[in-house]
Amino acid sequence: MSIARRIKRLGTETAFAVSREASEFALKGNKVFPFHIGDLNIPTPKNIVDAAFRAVREGKTTYCPSAGIDPLREALARDINSTHSTRYKMENVVIQPGGKPVIGKFILSLMNPGDQVLYPSPGYPIYESLIEFYGGIPLPYRYREGKEGFKLDLEYLKSIIGPSTRLLIFNDFQNPMAAEASADELKELAELVKRYDLYVLCDEAYFDIRYGGSSNSLASLEGMESRCVILYTFSKKFAMTGWRLGAAVAPEPVARTIAKLNTNNESCPNHFVQYGGLEGLRGSSRETDNIINILRRRRDRAVEILNSVKGVRCFNPETTFYLFPNVSEAMKRKGFDSYERFRKEVLLRTGVSFCTRLHFGREIKGEKEKYIRFAYSGIGIEDLTRGLNCFKEFIEH
Amino acid sequence: MSIARRIKRLGTETAFAVSREASEFALKGNKVFPFHIGDLNIPTPKNIVDAAFRAVREGKTTYCPSAGIDPLREALARDINSTHSTRYKMENVVIQPGGKPVIGKFILSLMNPGDQVLYPSPGYPIYESLIEFYGGIPLPYRYREGKEGFKLDLEYLKSIIGPSTRLLIFNDFQNPMAAEASADELKELAELVKRYDLYVLCDEAYFDIRYGGSSNSLASLEGMESRCVILYTFSKKFAMTGWRLGAAVAPEPVARTIAKLNTNNESCPNHFVQYGGLEGLRGSSRETDNIINILRRRRDRAVEILNSVKGVRCFNPETTFYLFPNVSEAMKRKGFDSYERFRKEVLLRTGVSFCTRLHFGREIKGEKEKYIRFAYSGIGIEDLTRGLNCFKEFIEH
Repeated sequence: MSIARRIKRLGTETAFAVSREASEFALKGNKVFPFHIGDLNIPTPKNIVDAAFRAVREGKTTYCPSAGIDPLREALARDINSTHSTRYKMENVVIQPGGKPVIGKFILSLMNPGDQVLYPSPGYPIYESLIEFYGGIPLPYRYREGKEGFKLDLEYLKSIIGPSTRLLIFNDFQNPMAAEASADELKELAELVKRYDLYVLCDEAYFDIRYGGSSNSLASLEGMESRCVILYTFSKKFAMTGWRLGAAVAPEPVARTIAKLNTNNESCPNHFVQYGGLEGLRGSSRETDNIINILRRRRDRAVEILNSVKGVRCFNPETTFYLFPNVSEAMKRKGFDSYERFRKEVLLRTGVSFCTRLHFGREIKGEKEKYIRFAYSGIGIEDLTRGLNCFKEFIEH
Repeated sequence: MSIARRIKRLGTETAFAVSREASEFALKGNKVFPFHIGDLNIPTPKNIVDAAFRAVREGKTTYCPSAGIDPLREALARDINSTHSTRYKMENVVIQPGGKPVIGKFILSLMNPGDQVLYPSPGYPIYESLIEFYGGIPLPYRYREGKEGFKLDLEYLKSIIGPSTRLLIFNDFQNPMAAEASADELKELAELVKRYDLYVLCDEAYFDIRYGGSSNSLASLEGMESRCVILYTFSKKFAMTGWRLGAAVAPEPVARTIAKLNTNNESCPNHFVQYGGLEGLRGSSRETDNIINILRRRRDRAVEILNSVKGVRCFNPETTFYLFPNVSEAMKRKGFDSYERFRKEVLLRTGVSFCTRLHFGREIKGEKEKYIRFAYSGIGIEDLTRGLNCFKEFIEH
């Protein structure tokens, strides 16, 4: 069979290759410290599980509307309004089998072939993949190290916008950098969006994963609600990654288009899983809060150890469950110039498995510093401590 | 926001409008007899439910591989080999959130823009929608009434194949006509596929829904395994429509491509739902067999009543849970020329809700006879009997 030409333009998540290597290494009897994947080793809260089971027993095993069940759409509109000061209604919410489907549906709904799309690099690699797959021109923008975290390079972003630039993918609470924009930066970004008549995907997968302060959304700023599509997911906050439940929250014409794509692609999201999500939004937050507490302890420990490693510097972000330390000096000291050689050698010598900058989209010309990504969502505090100490030992000796 | 131009080419399932009308009519306090939708009012077998619940308790709430869990891919390859005499391995199976995603992924993987795609009309409307959406040219082929059921019009099909014809969508055990090909017809079709170098989507959503005889697949014929992608679904056989679980079974290069599309679109199918599907394939078939028994009784009753109605003739198909009676005379006797006026009047006067030929793709020039579709999967035998007697009463008086 000869595969369609368009498939040549389709990218993937190269992080899966890292998972495979780690599994193979473990199968040989080696201890692996899994820092490579943004999954959670924390059970889904019991009240959510019970609600989903109850829904099965009550016969919610049939099809449901393409856009999802009304009570969940309503509850999510209300939930987002309460954190975003927006005025969404049920009609703005289209439930999805995960947060990820929103990326492709946003692009299909708003991008014409040949349109330029701004997206972060390093960033989630599926942006780049799907922009190109559907015939757009990817326009990567960058971040730089600030005082307390990575900062959006707004001057650079402005400098690359051209007459064909139509969409902006903005992943505040950013994967892999854990960057978040200040109020001033959001304001400036909103101005740009209006000036250049852009439409925005606000990928807010990590909006609710935070350890201090509060999250602010671009969609909350004046004039932005009608220009933003929010990617919402139940995956991280409620430890529901494998349940596949998320939503697009969008202006009505876009929401209707995305619902039509649902009809064509999946018919509808899983019916009873939505009742689990509904309980997550409406029910007790005790267990959900506990997830954040577990993650906070891991973050504190990981940041502490990483900053004690010679040649490594690491921010202490208030959001996401990723750390993106600068390892330029450490790599130089150990004689590594290649990310892949470094990553594989660390795995082989210590069992510590992580992704590097290479797994997050194409490099932008002029990048000099070296970064790797540690996810602390899928590793308990004891293994986290042991693993990072092994990493320290490897780097320093 | 201005929606992307491509969205103009996206169709939908107009049957959902029929559901909506039926619900609105019911909300006004009217009795509705739901024959319009291919959903089941039968619970998912308990062993399947229990297996899924167990998987949740065992922590299968995390991500899983994009192509699905290995045990399910293996079990499904084995299951299909046993009914198809094929030689599929795990690597040929890519699990999906439902059967429907296979349609779009088949087209994206194998169709280049401008390619012609053969598809049945009347047929599942999403074929037409997605062929056009992704830039192909839809080429509808037709069926005619035979002695005991609808027959593929092979002469017509041959007559429309041209140099740009590249793909064939073949839905044996057909929705809405419940048609199935004879051994000779499959042979002739396989010859055509080879002669014109076509690749085939075998939509086998209803392969296992049968009341007598046995199902045969085009993929079983010599040389076809390398040219066919099978759409498999757990929805109908196991009364799992709302669980969203299905699979593409394809030659390895296509399977790899579809898995890559999974990574981009959904990350992976729901993790624990797959353990439910696994139990369906491996566990006791007692409850599953019972589903078929329930459906058989409904079919027998429905065919009997419909054939007693003046001006209606209806085949007695051994497969699917649809009937597609010819109502040309009945409509004429009652003075209806418009499908929509007929459908709405029947709903209003009797509460009987059904789809018509109009809900299954564009008409092919020269169609003269009038058909409507009754689905008997979502209505118990008592209501089925009452509803069809009301329909009879309406037509005959």
